[in-house]
Amino acid sequence: MRELRVELGPRSYPIHIGPGAFDEAGEHLGNPPGNTPVIVSDEIVAPLYLEKIQWASGSDSVLILPTGESEKTLATVGKIYDFLLQNRRGRDTSLLALGGGVVGDMVGFAAATYQRGIPFVQLPTTLLAQVDSSVGGKTGVNHPLGKNMIGAFHQPKAVIVDTDTLRTLDKRQLQAGLAEVIKYGIIRDTDLFFWLEAHLDALLGLDDQALTECISRSCQNKAEIVQADEKEAGQRALLNLGHTFGHAVETAVGYGDWLHGEAVGLGIRIAAQLSGRLGTLDHGSIERINRLLDRAGLPATLPPEIDPVQLLELMELDKKTLKGRIRYVLPTAIGSAVITDSAPQPDVLATLHEFIL
Amino acid sequence: MRELRVELGPRSYPIHIGPGAFDEAGEHLGNPPGNTPVIVSDEIVAPLYLEKIQWASGSDSVLILPTGESEKTLATVGKIYDFLLQNRRGRDTSLLALGGGVVGDMVGFAAATYQRGIPFVQLPTTLLAQVDSSVGGKTGVNHPLGKNMIGAFHQPKAVIVDTDTLRTLDKRQLQAGLAEVIKYGIIRDTDLFFWLEAHLDALLGLDDQALTECISRSCQNKAEIVQADEKEAGQRALLNLGHTFGHAVETAVGYGDWLHGEAVGLGIRIAAQLSGRLGTLDHGSIERINRLLDRAGLPATLPPEIDPVQLLELMELDKKTLKGRIRYVLPTAIGSAVITDSAPQPDVLATLHEFIL
Repeated sequence: MRELRVELGPRSYPIHIGPGAFDEAGEHLGNPPGNTPVIVSDEIVAPLYLEKIQWASGSDSVLILPTGESEKTLATVGKIYDFLLQNRRGRDTSLLALGGGVVGDMVGFAAATYQRGIPFVQLPTTLLAQVDSSVGGKTGVNHPLGKNMIGAFHQPKAVIVDTDTLRTLDKRQLQAGLAEVIKYGIIRDTDLFFWLEAHLDALLGLDDQALTECISRSCQNKAEIVQADEKEAGQRALLNLGHTFGHAVETAVGYGDWLHGEAVGLGIRIAAQLSGRLGTLDHGSIERINRLLDRAGLPATLPPEIDPVQLLELMELDKKTLKGRIRYVLPTAIGSAVITDSAPQPDVLATLHEFIL
Repeated sequence: MRELRVELGPRSYPIHIGPGAFDEAGEHLGNPPGNTPVIVSDEIVAPLYLEKIQWASGSDSVLILPTGESEKTLATVGKIYDFLLQNRRGRDTSLLALGGGVVGDMVGFAAATYQRGIPFVQLPTTLLAQVDSSVGGKTGVNHPLGKNMIGAFHQPKAVIVDTDTLRTLDKRQLQAGLAEVIKYGIIRDTDLFFWLEAHLDALLGLDDQALTECISRSCQNKAEIVQADEKEAGQRALLNLGHTFGHAVETAVGYGDWLHGEAVGLGIRIAAQLSGRLGTLDHGSIERINRLLDRAGLPATLPPEIDPVQLLELMELDKKTLKGRIRYVLPTAIGSAVITDSAPQPDVLATLHEFIL
């Protein structure tokens, strides 16, 4: 079992990573006696892992939510509030988020806003949630007009990653999670990128050691960035590589048709291509990035029904827009990237057109 | 014009208090050029003061919400999200909350949760909001099962109190606000209590100097408590004097029938009476507290349809309940109070029965 820490003063917390982590979760939950947590999960994950977490936490207080990005709404979070109030849960209750990024984001937001804030623990069961969304305290839900538009920063008390959960994960979900791992390699961790080139097949083959290494290195990158810039005033925005384009794609196709990681994977390709067009990324690096994304099975083209001008409009509405200017994260090498709002619109549109077949 | 400060490190902010403060609000809003704030108000306040605030802020971006405690819901906050997204407002937008406590609480919560947090300024127009709810960062909405059950701590960037707004305030609202002022006197400020005994008629007569003094002293008390305990881990709970009983009354009669301050006023009487019954407050002090509340025109009896047992159940659900035990704030003298969870239930019930005529 590996243990990392996110150091944020009074909001610091551990990340436990390894096979069988859920079996040992009890010792990390630290529930005060007589105050069992409420477990929130979804219809897909509950049949697989709920029993383990009930045993580890000693709790039989369970809420099962509907599944999928299209359910990540204020209305679904309302079901958590209802459950807590119907069960007379006070400010001393903690929540356990058992599931993928959608469950983690919603439970985190409910924890941020129930009685002005209660503790919660992340028990992520998808690769994407394990390497990215469960760490760092971003919580929230979607609005019909934009992804993650309603939310709060609220750090978990702990993150417990059981790599065994990836054995039951849909292959498409595993591939989607790899997009966020590849992202860390591109924006700040050249060694991780090289390591991925060497170990991608082991990861897709669910090798225990490779998975633990991959998740630990990703969480370490995430932790370092969050420690330096918890509320995204500066460099945390580098984590948005591929997300400006990706969110717009997700919104354009409707939440749920594409997985978040798939959209991010395509977004990374577009960002690399745009950086190449602007002369800030060499052709060889673009090739290596695309090859790794290809090997991870991530999409390489925009859905044919999408209009680049519509995508631009959606990007203007994105949170990452500042004073009406779209902010792009552009790779400048394998292992570094910059944040810029000066990419000329014609270049962006021309780049988007390259991704329509 | 008086200026106080709430000192909370990077979240510190000024409170400007005095007649005509809205006319000078422009200099305190500090909007970056080209980025005018969004003004949120309600149907009652907008016709009176919107024009002043539009002039001061240079903004014509306005959202008018329905009025009243019964509208303080997640659905109404949803209208703020919709407006911001439809107007393509980014993370750099600030909100101005122009109105009473309901508008302030909802706009504060929208600011806490729109794009994971944007700045906002409080422009409170009721005495209650001016002396209490606009200061200290408590934001939120009601749930059918309990008051303020959904919310967040989110400090404003500034609070601007124009005492002239009290000239258009309904007398019942003014009286309700006095309940929170009297509360500061009882829990920690003997001098303020004496001052109120001497100046209550001047306050009810809307004397400018008395109003400015009353609001400044109240905000000073609030600021000191919030500075010592921003997230209510300890002594901030003293501010809940009268609120455990008061919230239960509000919930029992349905939001909107009683004003919050009226319910708090009655709650203070019940708390004082209970403290007397338990031998921790002398009869003379109870008399003085009741006399001051009488002079402020605040209610002295429970609505006849209310059952004390039902009130107890509602109190158990209140946020201030910890591990299932109801926490009471009980005055021990004029100028001091304690937080206790050991008031015997039969004494509480007997005390409640005394308030049914």
